[in-house]
Amino acid sequence: MSEADDAVDDADDAPVRACPAYLISPSSAVSPAAPVERALANLRRAGFAPVLDRAALRIRQRFAGSDEQRAGAFARAAAQDASLVMITRGGYGLTRILPLLDYRSLARARKRWVGLSDFTAFQLAMLAKARAVTWSGPALLDDFSAERFEDIDQTTLGTFQDAMSGALEIVGFRYAGPKDVEARGTLWGGNLSIVCALLATPWFPRIDGGILFIEDVNEHPYRIERMLTQLLHSGVLDRQSALLVGHVNRYRLAEHDRGFDLQCVIRWLRKQTKTPILTGLPFGHASPKLTLPHGAEVALGTEGRTCYLILDEHHHH
Amino acid sequence: MSEADDAVDDADDAPVRACPAYLISPSSAVSPAAPVERALANLRRAGFAPVLDRAALRIRQRFAGSDEQRAGAFARAAAQDASLVMITRGGYGLTRILPLLDYRSLARARKRWVGLSDFTAFQLAMLAKARAVTWSGPALLDDFSAERFEDIDQTTLGTFQDAMSGALEIVGFRYAGPKDVEARGTLWGGNLSIVCALLATPWFPRIDGGILFIEDVNEHPYRIERMLTQLLHSGVLDRQSALLVGHVNRYRLAEHDRGFDLQCVIRWLRKQTKTPILTGLPFGHASPKLTLPHGAEVALGTEGRTCYLILDEHHHH
Repeated sequence: MSEADDAVDDADDAPVRACPAYLISPSSAVSPAAPVERALANLRRAGFAPVLDRAALRIRQRFAGSDEQRAGAFARAAAQDASLVMITRGGYGLTRILPLLDYRSLARARKRWVGLSDFTAFQLAMLAKARAVTWSGPALLDDFSAERFEDIDQTTLGTFQDAMSGALEIVGFRYAGPKDVEARGTLWGGNLSIVCALLATPWFPRIDGGILFIEDVNEHPYRIERMLTQLLHSGVLDRQSALLVGHVNRYRLAEHDRGFDLQCVIRWLRKQTKTPILTGLPFGHASPKLTLPHGAEVALGTEGRTCYLILDEHHHH
Repeated sequence: MSEADDAVDDADDAPVRACPAYLISPSSAVSPAAPVERALANLRRAGFAPVLDRAALRIRQRFAGSDEQRAGAFARAAAQDASLVMITRGGYGLTRILPLLDYRSLARARKRWVGLSDFTAFQLAMLAKARAVTWSGPALLDDFSAERFEDIDQTTLGTFQDAMSGALEIVGFRYAGPKDVEARGTLWGGNLSIVCALLATPWFPRIDGGILFIEDVNEHPYRIERMLTQLLHSGVLDRQSALLVGHVNRYRLAEHDRGFDLQCVIRWLRKQTKTPILTGLPFGHASPKLTLPHGAEVALGTEGRTCYLILDEHHHH
């Protein structure tokens, strides 16, 4: 608690019923030019009372502070009062501090940890080491930076609000893939590069019969394929009851690809595994972005071109 | 043998004592604009008699033919007479055909398989599945494409010729790192992205006390660090008696790196492991490029700023 007292309290003008949200920067540095104030204002207007961790705006080379400072932010977040902990942004920096975190202690704090991208490393580690549920969802600068509050994606905002208030019970989205899929298992995954970067390490969770979801950004389809191939060859993919593919974007196809694209990757992968592969999950480095309980038991079903995820709120807090 | 008969015989004008070399394309397609003829002529002048596998110039999207065609090239290479098998180029495509290859049968053919980059996947698999020695060395288009034969890097060419004739017993290079390092173990590794892409799969060899070498291209230092961190956290790095860092190049640092660079990565990594880390190995996507026996027992020693690798030729053929 004493450390959290040093935090910049940004919640003075928040509405009375606002949900306190503690913000940490566990990965890359927040640029001095980033619209932090605007994003905080939008977050307030959305019904949250954001508090910046004292190290959230630190800069050390490309990182948001030293390894110890970034690891310390998790302990401070666990010790302060807000039950919601968000990240300012992703980037890079979490994998190298994984050995510095005490996952059982962080899980005992019973926070709602929310984030994505590089944050996937923390989420996988929390699942592997403490069987803890975290939330795959928005980040401050990625999702709340719009100049006008009205320009914030309404699906992203709505499911985030619902998830954080415990009201999110089901999400549905238009998908492509096999018909009549039914599955039930642990929902897990996130950024594909990070999922693969943890393979063979102590922070990769062993999940059988799970519903694995992936997304990625700035990765050419051949790299996506190489990573999915690693999940295939390591046996992870065959052990899942479904694979959900989210946004894969911001890459550039080249002339020498000669038609090779993400569709080819998915088509090839479907021939290699019996695990049903469903594309179209609204999650990743784009809008809309669902907020999903990472590590929770969920049920998956399809009806026509719609895929539903039924979230059992009682499995997590 | 019958399949190899279909190969384009390109060795008609080779000198009598020329070393026959069979060329395959197991990964990306050779561009129709690539200077294949010039590279073959240079290879001939260097004392080799190159023969192109019948599928070496196939193009299927970004690949040099279908998975089956590229896998078939290995069987054809094993069945033909030349003891030296080279690749036209690397790129991408080997990881997805790893399950299609019969490593014991390929090892029994007792060829000198030479290559690098994506070829690392085959080399690691040969080591994991057949304890077979292969060669980390040049590729046709990467190293023999010079307009003038005289412009081919003399160290690259000389050590390749020596290695292929069985005369390469020791290599030395200027290095940076800890003094007075002495080690002995299995020399293994190659392209870092590929080494990490095989972690947790059946084709990743279990090597204790080895001398691991890595190189990479087009990967930002933060990605190099993330991959080395995976080798660290998976226990692979601590199990080695030395890590040799080759060429890491063709990346661009950004303003927001604020001084973070490859030196920072090496410095950070040295604090995380007791395994001595030596930089300066002439291997990777640049010249000079040594030809090294992948999977062979070697001895490593340093004298002043020079690192030596003593290759025990009798350990392999």
